Amino acid sequence: MLALAAYPLGLQCEFLDRDAATPGGQVAPILVGELDDAQKLKQLAARVDVLTFDWENISGEALAPLRRLTRIRPSPMALRISQDRLHEKALFTKLSIPVAPHAAVDTQRQLERALSRLGLPGVLKTRRFGYDGKGQALIRSGADAQAAWARLAGEALIYEAFQPFSREVSIIGARSARGEVAYYPLAANTHQDGILRYSVAPYSNRRLEKAAAVYLRRVMRALDYVGVLAVEFFVVGGRLVANEMAPRVHNSGHWTIEGCVTSQFENHLRAICDLPLGSTRTLGAAAMINFLGTMPSRERLLDIEGLSYHDYGKAPRAGRKLGHCTILKSRVADRNRALRQVLSLVEWT
Amino acid sequence: MLALAAYPLGLQCEFLDRDAATPGGQVAPILVGELDDAQKLKQLAARVDVLTFDWENISGEALAPLRRLTRIRPSPMALRISQDRLHEKALFTKLSIPVAPHAAVDTQRQLERALSRLGLPGVLKTRRFGYDGKGQALIRSGADAQAAWARLAGEALIYEAFQPFSREVSIIGARSARGEVAYYPLAANTHQDGILRYSVAPYSNRRLEKAAAVYLRRVMRALDYVGVLAVEFFVVGGRLVANEMAPRVHNSGHWTIEGCVTSQFENHLRAICDLPLGSTRTLGAAAMINFLGTMPSRERLLDIEGLSYHDYGKAPRAGRKLGHCTILKSRVADRNRALRQVLSLVEWT
Repeated sequence: MLALAAYPLGLQCEFLDRDAATPGGQVAPILVGELDDAQKLKQLAARVDVLTFDWENISGEALAPLRRLTRIRPSPMALRISQDRLHEKALFTKLSIPVAPHAAVDTQRQLERALSRLGLPGVLKTRRFGYDGKGQALIRSGADAQAAWARLAGEALIYEAFQPFSREVSIIGARSARGEVAYYPLAANTHQDGILRYSVAPYSNRRLEKAAAVYLRRVMRALDYVGVLAVEFFVVGGRLVANEMAPRVHNSGHWTIEGCVTSQFENHLRAICDLPLGSTRTLGAAAMINFLGTMPSRERLLDIEGLSYHDYGKAPRAGRKLGHCTILKSRVADRNRALRQVLSLVEWT
Repeated sequence: MLALAAYPLGLQCEFLDRDAATPGGQVAPILVGELDDAQKLKQLAARVDVLTFDWENISGEALAPLRRLTRIRPSPMALRISQDRLHEKALFTKLSIPVAPHAAVDTQRQLERALSRLGLPGVLKTRRFGYDGKGQALIRSGADAQAAWARLAGEALIYEAFQPFSREVSIIGARSARGEVAYYPLAANTHQDGILRYSVAPYSNRRLEKAAAVYLRRVMRALDYVGVLAVEFFVVGGRLVANEMAPRVHNSGHWTIEGCVTSQFENHLRAICDLPLGSTRTLGAAAMINFLGTMPSRERLLDIEGLSYHDYGKAPRAGRKLGHCTILKSRVADRNRALRQVLSLVEWT
């Protein structure tokens, strides 16, 4: 999706990927290698004006030495903080952005102390390499805690008091090197088993959107951020509680391809290439629905008026994000009706 | 632009082009060869589910034998008619679509007869291979007629009485094999030296739009058309006079990428691949401005709010279409202001 947004801007992409058959290979040259392969990274960095990433579980350590060869945007520092839930929460807290009560857990003793201090229920999570619900365990009892410890021990962990949220929302914005910021309206996200199933946008709540935008700007400024950044929040008792951030284009922003004048992909490219940011004005009531594990019937989905289809060209595999579709309608009621229709046709496997 | 629309739909493109360095080569495999190279065409046809074209000056005769190998959409018949101004006008006339008074001109004697019957001013045009104003001569006097004849004689010609038009408009629509039709609102087109400079859409005139849609449907039905078709009209005394048609995605429809829910490119692909047609609903007030000969400053253009930039990745050459930009605004006055701003930054060479 980055490459598709790049060509019209007159930009050429090249991707480093472990697999030559990656979707990006349909639209750009692929350099095949491990994402922390110093030689391959060096090769890529030497050829490009700017290096970026669309997955945050890559090695900040591997990127750091490339700074002598090319610009890296966003910075390896933003990457490193977002890779560790504890550092992320420390940054949020430093910036007066509310987070769930939490504690670092490296030993069973620390887990016991965290449980007694923060109470039940809560979630034990790995600090690093967690995404799409991986490396998480919900703890409602002492027995749950034992099982969670047995499963996750050995990695740096964090225990968070469970947030009785009414909704999960995310804000996405872009920041240029000059400090110009453009942000999209809130999206309301529905997860299942930790994986985003669908997003509805704009989630119209002026007060929450304003708060989210203020928090997003604070994070961006603190990191001297360049590119697109997403911050996910829980809505708890009408207030935002920051959950995590992603230093990249974000699944909950895929609706911006059709739903906004300028997509998150184009704005990421504009930001990292020192081009003026594009308008984030919305063009209607949108919804984005993920295709997981199996592709739905293209014919039946395309029959829904106002639907755009996105097949990533990936091989099906249980739980794998294979594509998505976006609905764009002028009226919220029509969007909601079409969303229900799509949900009846999409099977998550 | 077809390839960029194809990937999200899960479709793969391959292009036949005379030049390996064609813009399409950035996003799809290129088969290099002349467009009437029977062997190359056969090779391509054998590999694809459906064959289409985005330029009408290709050989219908070369395509015809490929029908045994694959589907050709739109049909070679539609292509052949659109390649000959006389046949085009005969079709329009048969379908009760107004055209300019005209006469075939193969000899100087016929030209004299046409001039005396249809009067001055008028335009002498080659019947075939004319596009972007090529092969045309405006005749306002006997001396002009002599010069035009000296320049164009030897080819099959047509003389048309000059139409004192107040505006040029085009309608673009898509038709599926099942006969489903979707059409876009009218675009108002501004030409200079026969080359489209910019289009403004939607050109809001219910009566003219309705008439254009009726005419478009008639042509599509008569040709059992599959794909996107454009028909250009002069507005003469408040009435539409058909000028020509193009059996392909059309320059005056490039604004639909940003300006409509589904672009002309996606709808062409949906039509020729037997997928349901997409919504042609407009998302605001749009304008499309061509980049001819030289590319304008990307930075300065992208600084205009609501502007999308399209660089085709072509080498600059006088008069060559190198790209375009689209403005999308919610209000007509804002669109017009931005259009003036773009026109002050774009130089046509």
